[in-house]
Amino acid sequence: MKRTERACIITQILTEHPNKDYSLGFFADKFGCAKSSISEDLKLVRTAMDEAGLGYVETTSGSKGGVRYVPYITKEESIAGLEKMKAMLEDPSRNVGGGYIFTTDLLYDPEIGQACAMQFAKHFASSEADIVVTIETRGIGVAMLTARLLDLPLVVIRREARVSEGATISINYYSGSSDRVQKMSLAKRAIKPGSKAVIIDDFMRNGGTLKGIEDMLTEFDAKAVGFGSVIVTQGVRDKKIGNFFPIMILSDTEDGYRVAINPDII
Amino acid sequence: MKRTERACIITQILTEHPNKDYSLGFFADKFGCAKSSISEDLKLVRTAMDEAGLGYVETTSGSKGGVRYVPYITKEESIAGLEKMKAMLEDPSRNVGGGYIFTTDLLYDPEIGQACAMQFAKHFASSEADIVVTIETRGIGVAMLTARLLDLPLVVIRREARVSEGATISINYYSGSSDRVQKMSLAKRAIKPGSKAVIIDDFMRNGGTLKGIEDMLTEFDAKAVGFGSVIVTQGVRDKKIGNFFPIMILSDTEDGYRVAINPDII
Repeated sequence: MKRTERACIITQILTEHPNKDYSLGFFADKFGCAKSSISEDLKLVRTAMDEAGLGYVETTSGSKGGVRYVPYITKEESIAGLEKMKAMLEDPSRNVGGGYIFTTDLLYDPEIGQACAMQFAKHFASSEADIVVTIETRGIGVAMLTARLLDLPLVVIRREARVSEGATISINYYSGSSDRVQKMSLAKRAIKPGSKAVIIDDFMRNGGTLKGIEDMLTEFDAKAVGFGSVIVTQGVRDKKIGNFFPIMILSDTEDGYRVAINPDII
Repeated sequence: MKRTERACIITQILTEHPNKDYSLGFFADKFGCAKSSISEDLKLVRTAMDEAGLGYVETTSGSKGGVRYVPYITKEESIAGLEKMKAMLEDPSRNVGGGYIFTTDLLYDPEIGQACAMQFAKHFASSEADIVVTIETRGIGVAMLTARLLDLPLVVIRREARVSEGATISINYYSGSSDRVQKMSLAKRAIKPGSKAVIIDDFMRNGGTLKGIEDMLTEFDAKAVGFGSVIVTQGVRDKKIGNFFPIMILSDTEDGYRVAINPDII
């Protein structure tokens, strides 16, 4: 294989496996060539990615010494996906009454889901999290795509424990979105003590659910190192968590609601 | 930018957006060069991918005339991810009693989830589906990753309708896994009439849930064009659907269960 072809395949493998560590030896074996050649190939891939501003190749230290691909998205590249999402959210037919907005299809649209996941992966790239945590159901798609980009396992908290979960821990919490006390459950074996979690959810009103998940984590001797929510409602003063990263900000107006993209993103 | 760098960036963009159509004009604008140059770059990318056997570049016809990246995984490349999954499934500590196996973490592991999604995307690449459908909760991660690889929207059927879903359609069905009649609900606006669906689920015993989803689809004047289940139990004769694609096959033994990878895959 020629250098250019090797560079394309290395780019493809790295892009398919974000944040996964690869040793130079892995590629050397794959292509049957010297590590020094792979080093040169990687320089080429790195230069190309740097110029395009779509993710970058990071050198990993340690005994194996290799590389990983860190996904990145520029402000300019972010706009298209997020504007599409904003326009869809603003469609008045999504207002299903009672202050509720139909968002399900949106969060499971692969383009929009991936656009959100990309923002979360970029924002939490340096969080040193070991796991991504969400609660069923609507946020699971975006959380899974985020977990893939960060190469971290996803943990999904259930409303009710299922028989196949084995022993579980349950807590009650106040959910502002539904204005009532709700329950969440998680298998005892789902989280290792000492884990650091990025929490991802689809919708946040006063942060009660995210606070509930944070409390749940303490039951596992684990802790939250970041909070991300696809949609956050503005104007609720009494947010139960301090530092969260929203993608879309919703504010009530007299005749419905208004949608804005988090200004830190674009 | 040099040809090699352009080829790397084209590879990266295509790989990040599986099955999405790109016109030559898109890349020509991006790199500020002629479509004929992009054509040459693409030849290079195509040759590289063909040699590596990891996905391929397909030419799309029609007025725009462009390319798309179709993910593919060879039998040889499949083995590592699937063997890891098999070994994890065979761990006796997963047997939580009552014939149930703890699989949750496994399905939300990004490496295993992506390995399964890759098999589904490969198997259903020619299904001409418009949507991927699953039912909450455990299969959502793999279904979302599959939907991303096929560039199709995911539709998630709920057990109980939520207020934010608007008008819903509900049906009852017999679930062999839980040995009882269960309910499933879906927002009326979730599926367009005439849609063709690939149905993905995490676990199939007698196929009652998949059959239920098939029935649900007829309520939307939609139809199933494929069934995929991560784990399927062997030995249940009376499967309610005929043609399904499993990744792992589970068979009961006197002292537990045995796991095999679908022999069509490896």
